[in-house]
Amino acid sequence: MSGIVVQNIQRADQSVIDALAECGVATVHEAQGRKGLLADYLRPIYAGARIAGSAVTILAPPCDNWMLHVAIEQLQPGDILLLGTTSPSNAGYFGDLLATSAQARGCRGLVIDAGVRDIRDLTGMQFPVWSKHVFAQGTIKETVGSVNVPVVCADALVNAGDVIVADDDGVCVVRRQEAAEVLEKARTREANEAAKRARFEAGELGLDIYDMRARLAEKGLKYV
Amino acid sequence: MSGIVVQNIQRADQSVIDALAECGVATVHEAQGRKGLLADYLRPIYAGARIAGSAVTILAPPCDNWMLHVAIEQLQPGDILLLGTTSPSNAGYFGDLLATSAQARGCRGLVIDAGVRDIRDLTGMQFPVWSKHVFAQGTIKETVGSVNVPVVCADALVNAGDVIVADDDGVCVVRRQEAAEVLEKARTREANEAAKRARFEAGELGLDIYDMRARLAEKGLKYV
Amino acid sequence: MSGIVVQNIQRADQSVIDALAECGVATVHEAQGRKGLLADYLRPIYAGARIAGSAVTILAPPCDNWMLHVAIEQLQPGDILLLGTTSPSNAGYFGDLLATSAQARGCRGLVIDAGVRDIRDLTGMQFPVWSKHVFAQGTIKETVGSVNVPVVCADALVNAGDVIVADDDGVCVVRRQEAAEVLEKARTREANEAAKRARFEAGELGLDIYDMRARLAEKGLKYV
Amino acid sequence: MSGIVVQNIQRADQSVIDALAECGVATVHEAQGRKGLLADYLRPIYAGARIAGSAVTILAPPCDNWMLHVAIEQLQPGDILLLGTTSPSNAGYFGDLLATSAQARGCRGLVIDAGVRDIRDLTGMQFPVWSKHVFAQGTIKETVGSVNVPVVCADALVNAGDVIVADDDGVCVVRRQEAAEVLEKARTREANEAAKRARFEAGELGLDIYDMRARLAEKGLKYV
Amino acid sequence: MSGIVVQNIQRADQSVIDALAECGVATVHEAQGRKGLLADYLRPIYAGARIAGSAVTILAPPCDNWMLHVAIEQLQPGDILLLGTTSPSNAGYFGDLLATSAQARGCRGLVIDAGVRDIRDLTGMQFPVWSKHVFAQGTIKETVGSVNVPVVCADALVNAGDVIVADDDGVCVVRRQEAAEVLEKARTREANEAAKRARFEAGELGLDIYDMRARLAEKGLKYV
Amino acid sequence: MSGIVVQNIQRADQSVIDALAECGVATVHEAQGRKGLLADYLRPIYAGARIAGSAVTILAPPCDNWMLHVAIEQLQPGDILLLGTTSPSNAGYFGDLLATSAQARGCRGLVIDAGVRDIRDLTGMQFPVWSKHVFAQGTIKETVGSVNVPVVCADALVNAGDVIVADDDGVCVVRRQEAAEVLEKARTREANEAAKRARFEAGELGLDIYDMRARLAEKGLKYV
Repeated sequence: MSGIVVQNIQRADQSVIDALAECGVATVHEAQGRKGLLADYLRPIYAGARIAGSAVTILAPPCDNWMLHVAIEQLQPGDILLLGTTSPSNAGYFGDLLATSAQARGCRGLVIDAGVRDIRDLTGMQFPVWSKHVFAQGTIKETVGSVNVPVVCADALVNAGDVIVADDDGVCVVRRQEAAEVLEKARTREANEAAKRARFEAGELGLDIYDMRARLAEKGLKYV
Repeated sequence: MSGIVVQNIQRADQSVIDALAECGVATVHEAQGRKGLLADYLRPIYAGARIAGSAVTILAPPCDNWMLHVAIEQLQPGDILLLGTTSPSNAGYFGDLLATSAQARGCRGLVIDAGVRDIRDLTGMQFPVWSKHVFAQGTIKETVGSVNVPVVCADALVNAGDVIVADDDGVCVVRRQEAAEVLEKARTREANEAAKRARFEAGELGLDIYDMRARLAEKGLKYV
Repeated sequence: MSGIVVQNIQRADQSVIDALAECGVATVHEAQGRKGLLADYLRPIYAGARIAGSAVTILAPPCDNWMLHVAIEQLQPGDILLLGTTSPSNAGYFGDLLATSAQARGCRGLVIDAGVRDIRDLTGMQFPVWSKHVFAQGTIKETVGSVNVPVVCADALVNAGDVIVADDDGVCVVRRQEAAEVLEKARTREANEAAKRARFEAGELGLDIYDMRARLAEKGLKYV
Repeated sequence: MSGIVVQNIQRADQSVIDALAECGVATVHEAQGRKGLLADYLRPIYAGARIAGSAVTILAPPCDNWMLHVAIEQLQPGDILLLGTTSPSNAGYFGDLLATSAQARGCRGLVIDAGVRDIRDLTGMQFPVWSKHVFAQGTIKETVGSVNVPVVCADALVNAGDVIVADDDGVCVVRRQEAAEVLEKARTREANEAAKRARFEAGELGLDIYDMRARLAEKGLKYV
Repeated sequence: MSGIVVQNIQRADQSVIDALAECGVATVHEAQGRKGLLADYLRPIYAGARIAGSAVTILAPPCDNWMLHVAIEQLQPGDILLLGTTSPSNAGYFGDLLATSAQARGCRGLVIDAGVRDIRDLTGMQFPVWSKHVFAQGTIKETVGSVNVPVVCADALVNAGDVIVADDDGVCVVRRQEAAEVLEKARTREANEAAKRARFEAGELGLDIYDMRARLAEKGLKYV
Repeated sequence: MSGIVVQNIQRADQSVIDALAECGVATVHEAQGRKGLLADYLRPIYAGARIAGSAVTILAPPCDNWMLHVAIEQLQPGDILLLGTTSPSNAGYFGDLLATSAQARGCRGLVIDAGVRDIRDLTGMQFPVWSKHVFAQGTIKETVGSVNVPVVCADALVNAGDVIVADDDGVCVVRRQEAAEVLEKARTREANEAAKRARFEAGELGLDIYDMRARLAEKGLKYV
């Protein structure tokens, strides 16, 4: 599976993808049955970004960012770069030049199970990155990896063309084939939450809204 | 100690609590003899918040946030929710709906030895949280815990009604019975520091202000 | 090497130092052959600071901040305090009073392989700190260390008078004797990058700009 | 609570304590309702030890082992030393001389939320230690702490005289007042497990022994 | 993908599997092009075990070990249980009773991206486990997961029936379809290493055996 | 400092080195004023080894073990290989073939701020290694580093020819020029400890042996 670039990948419908961004990570994760979260060590380099896009996946060797150049050629507007490594590395695989190149091709952001650098410039460009490390250590270009193959990134399996949703809560992957269905469930959930929020704002308790008192008593909860 | 909700807890005087918030974590910790700090892995979800309040404590099972609903009913205006777990968990126990409910009852914030989610919304609501993790992973409601019992949270023992002080430096607990005395010492310390600050601003050295030179020489410090 | 304060240290040319700050950590690290980075666990207490200065080094015992007072007397305008410990400690060695004193003497910031506190005040003063921990735990003044001796800080060796560059990417040390040469290389690199950036913005690919396609094919990369 | 030595503490019945050692950590933890485990970062310095004893508790400053000498005077045969710190430290608080002293007074082992050294000698003496760190770093004797006060150690609250059980699985605390009752439940559990073990050895499945198939189907498990 | 048990899985040839065990993790990992290693946080509970087997995979919720009972029914002699979780957990999913049941069905060991307990008993039974944690914390049986679906375990994707190789170096996965070819390459490598080992024992240098001197000089290495 | 091999290094007297091994890490660290310890994340691959030797130092790129071959040529009987990296790596730089080569030249062991593999074979050969990681991940041979230059390894600065002492407690470095003096102090310390040990075995307390009672009372310790 090494040394391969898959050029034609399928993507979910762009309007579905954009709508998933609006729902956010927590809601999407719930809507698809509490699956798809990437590990919580992935953190955004600045607060407030919220994006979704089709994954262009990269499997890269440790400390070697060559495949990022290869992957950028495969980008279409609205895509997100997602990089996993064959062995852990905290090196800074990605900085402002690569971001300039990716942004020029319509890329919405990067999810990387390694390090990133040029944080100040990336923030200025509003090119969001979710990474395991922030570290300026340079990388080499010696060993080929693969692009658009299935990749394990931060404990989750991601296929090329899967939908990536990312915000301040972290990163979630939605299978391409399930994107429309997940969106529908996410919207139902949001509608339901809006109603609940109004009741909470009015001072009602979850104990009553969700009718929990009897079941708590049954489980042995005692008030003293 | 499991499955119990203590309904009547004593609280410190609210004016004392509010004044402790103004002093901040570092000063309060010093004023009470350098005790009461919670572990430094608790970090605020956004910068700049500074609060104090009476602890409504929660002992919760891993990945189970049921007791938060129970605890919210016990809140009085000015309180802070504080949650410890019976086993480590990075799940997202708390999000914007629970925050809406807690805020509606006058709660000032949450300290949680586990995960939180909906960071963007919580930041928008200005509902501050100090947590061990940020993670969207959903929780279940299967097992009862307890409310307002003594809880170990981030290496510190917290009793219901103890005063919690939290800011960008982290979180500190003050025993309810000692709150007034700690405040007095904190104010003395602050007054003392204000005088020192003026001398430092004027360029005086700590070596002279604190008269350290002789003792340093005695301990063997050599200038070369 | 313990119990010594070296009073006369050599510094690099101030205009060189100031120019290195403009280049930033990633560029300086590359310009000097990818060496000199301090470990990535050092993080800034607030985003956006970018400084360079001559290192006034401190070797301190765990939980003991006495030497900071000694070091501040050795500061000249434009210097940076850099503290390593003889054994790991997360205690808060440095807060707003010491920052006031250091700032009054022209100090530009602190790099500390331990903890810092009073984050809110330090942010308000715009006194930047890169630290391993944020923790309010107080320190003692019992044991002497040394000032302006070689110090291992966050995995890197730093000599007094070496140039420290720090920004959102982390911290880098440049040997005093190499500062001018490194600056020259950094500027060449920046000029080169500016030209590249324009081409990337125009949509050119790194694959073409760096002429990578033939070498990738030679290494066995296959497009499918 | 600092600077106090409580001299007379109550202990559980020694035969109960000895029997709890035989049950081991996992069984005792289950028997008391899945509570009382200390954090899993406490690891034994050598494999195979299994002990129980009454806790002589120590609250110690970081990098300062003075209170260990104070605590050893309070030991009775069959006791276990348990040390928590007021701030994290990886220093080596305890080595072969202190172990010799403790062993001479009948102490069965040490649980320490910090570092230990002289591993080779301690192993030779068969003096078991469960610690957070192994590190040779020496400590000082400058600041008093307390002995036989309630201590938070590795996330758990331990009172003087509580029963500590420790083996290769880690460490568990049993409240002194509950020791006899916990032992009874642990024995019931062991008897029950012995019967189960025979059925498992004979090849029966947990699915049948615990009658799980119907409930699994009800929860939606599908065989394909 | 949740709530499914795949009953018929394909396995590699048993003689191939057994031979891979003899090669060990480092050799197998090299033979298949340096891929397939699970994360290095998986450690054996005792030293010296070296096994290989077909993976019966388990995807389990946090703190819930119900699926282990389901998976044991799917075991054939020579298999290895491999468990990943839907969210991180350090709970003790597996102990001596489950090991007795698994061993009765010919299971060779367990690889688990979570916690294990009863270390003393498992060591006595010589039932090897590679785990992320050792912790006695009990689990519940409330939520179904899946058996024999693809699982991400310690950063690697494992399919049911893939070959797992585990020894003191850690754990490696070999795709079922590639097992025979990997074995062949591993044997070639071992033969090659045996010849090299004899030359090294005789005092020859790698610099000469691998003819490195010219290339080192070309890369700029200087002897001074 | 990259790309250099220093061929002639000075070593301490071999009888001094051998005697330091007998003293062990904790004693040597104390004898030289509590300095020189390497970070506690370095752990031995098997228990019971205790060695000392002259450091042949290696500065290596991440994931690249080429310099180990270069360094082995520089070994003399009684030396210890010590490797630091220019950027963190958990790769397995060293295994049984390199150990065979090093052992053939009289090398006593390896200290490595990275990963090691072939643990089973190394244990069988009784070639001790203290490492940060155990991981089978292979390395490349692409980039030159240096041999026998000053290296930062696990937070400590080590010069070629410095004496390395390593045992179950970890690793300590003694400056070559100070080795004889440190040995003398270590022996004094050992003699002193032998006398103390006898008194402790006889049941005397440290409180009395070290005459601590008055100073404890003075510091405010109260018996209740």
